[in-house]
Amino acid sequence: MPLSDIITGMTLIIAVDIGGTQIRAAAYRRGSTTPETVQRTPTRGEGTAFERLCGLIQSIWPEHGTVEKIVVALPGPLDPETGVIFSAPNIKGWENFAIAPELSARFGVPVKIGNDANLAALGEWRFGAGKGHHNLLYITVSTGIGGGIISDDRLLLGERGLAAEIGHISVMPDGPLCGCGQRGHLEALASGPAIARFVESELGAGAVSTLQGRSPLTARDVSEAAAQGDALAIRALQTAGTYIGMALANFLHLFNPSVVIFGGGVSFSGDYLLEPVKTTLHQQVMNASYLQDLVITRAALGDDAGLLGALALGLLPDN
Amino acid sequence: MPLSDIITGMTLIIAVDIGGTQIRAAAYRRGSTTPETVQRTPTRGEGTAFERLCGLIQSIWPEHGTVEKIVVALPGPLDPETGVIFSAPNIKGWENFAIAPELSARFGVPVKIGNDANLAALGEWRFGAGKGHHNLLYITVSTGIGGGIISDDRLLLGERGLAAEIGHISVMPDGPLCGCGQRGHLEALASGPAIARFVESELGAGAVSTLQGRSPLTARDVSEAAAQGDALAIRALQTAGTYIGMALANFLHLFNPSVVIFGGGVSFSGDYLLEPVKTTLHQQVMNASYLQDLVITRAALGDDAGLLGALALGLLPDN
Repeated sequence: MPLSDIITGMTLIIAVDIGGTQIRAAAYRRGSTTPETVQRTPTRGEGTAFERLCGLIQSIWPEHGTVEKIVVALPGPLDPETGVIFSAPNIKGWENFAIAPELSARFGVPVKIGNDANLAALGEWRFGAGKGHHNLLYITVSTGIGGGIISDDRLLLGERGLAAEIGHISVMPDGPLCGCGQRGHLEALASGPAIARFVESELGAGAVSTLQGRSPLTARDVSEAAAQGDALAIRALQTAGTYIGMALANFLHLFNPSVVIFGGGVSFSGDYLLEPVKTTLHQQVMNASYLQDLVITRAALGDDAGLLGALALGLLPDN
Repeated sequence: MPLSDIITGMTLIIAVDIGGTQIRAAAYRRGSTTPETVQRTPTRGEGTAFERLCGLIQSIWPEHGTVEKIVVALPGPLDPETGVIFSAPNIKGWENFAIAPELSARFGVPVKIGNDANLAALGEWRFGAGKGHHNLLYITVSTGIGGGIISDDRLLLGERGLAAEIGHISVMPDGPLCGCGQRGHLEALASGPAIARFVESELGAGAVSTLQGRSPLTARDVSEAAAQGDALAIRALQTAGTYIGMALANFLHLFNPSVVIFGGGVSFSGDYLLEPVKTTLHQQVMNASYLQDLVITRAALGDDAGLLGALALGLLPDN
């Protein structure tokens, strides 16, 4: 332990990542991205999710030293100003739940919260594939499509923290129904479930594929079949990539980023997805200036994106 | 003249608004939105546009007092960092023209430049219909469709100042050709010329209207006919409004503003345009939270938007 820590007491930031299946918590010393301690617990189990969360935080609370703040990455729309989460898929009772004030009252330290996709963007900007960039677009393609925008070194939040819902841009008017209830959104056309649905629909229409008879079919199955050369699987990924490219052309016109970072499981399914993204982007961008020096890359932080994103938020100056 | 000005010399900001037909320049004292002097000159005429611009600035240069900076609103894509304008419609020789450095060398004061739609957004935020808001979306509908975004009290510029090209969001894949060369952009569907084209096309298909035989037909003619109850004209404005509403739903999901401000001549053509904007927005927004307390209004600064926007930029702290 450095002498300064012994004298002043070590100062830690506790980062928490709440997912649909598990909650992880880690304590970081300022200046380090290697946690002092990490613990995890299933999101669902005995007691309320909030009590499980509190227990987990308690379990990593340092015996010596001080906790400066707690930062929580949450899987749902929320207001970072008031610390209220509006809803969390799969977590009962977290409708309009004032999670930050509740945690702060329990632990006696400041608590910040952020949308997990927004925080992953912030994490990639501070520690990952976006380091050194000032204008970043992060897009995560998995069960849903989410993301985050860094503009001029600041996270774009909007009035109520509801900005950067980049999965909910319309790509095909009157297109397929989206989970949000609207039609033709990017998420309804290019998320993992949308890719699986495309394959199922083509199979139903008589297409030939090694995926025939697989049920339930997932985007991972499609990726693996594509890697084996299955023509339908390749076409499904290319179709999704084309839709993502169409949306991305719009995002370039709106945000003019210098780096676009792809996260989420589906993004790692080989080049069958990303090649048509790039091709479509080049075709549909209005002006080559948007592509000049533009970096398109994959996320670097992997499973730690949530924790490191929360840490990145914790390291920002309060304002 | 206040005593402080006599002692210290009055400090002025010179704001310039360069349009396709005229250049206006005004000198403002800090703290005032009433110019000390204003002059204008046609954009085209004897000599180069740059020489005409310099002559105009010279003509309002104060005999006494100090010019703190010059700020120029320009009608084209530009890089606010380097002070280079990439192109200006109707102005010969302004391709990749380092206008800010050139002006600065000529007059010996700092020079800032901004895209006129971006600066109009900034002007409305500082002095106009967006006063007091922190997250603003400004959309101007006239010959083209442009705009500006204020996020958390800062103008969204992107890496090269090319952000907020809100007229170039795709609304209808494979739709009509846009001036930028792409298809189906909002500008190609809802700008003044697009509204006129819609009427012409319907007339060609046999629609009955008081606009029959009017050539060239403008969006103003359509507005006037709508005000007289012409069914085709009303339908043309409603169609444009629907497209704008579709785009606006996307913008809410991406920027989550607390105020949306409509500028540009077409926006002032009565409620036939704005009512379908609101209806479509309500239908297509994914979550009512985006509409809670959202203000939708018309621009307040009128013809002075460019000058006051340039002044607003001049008043921002340098960073």
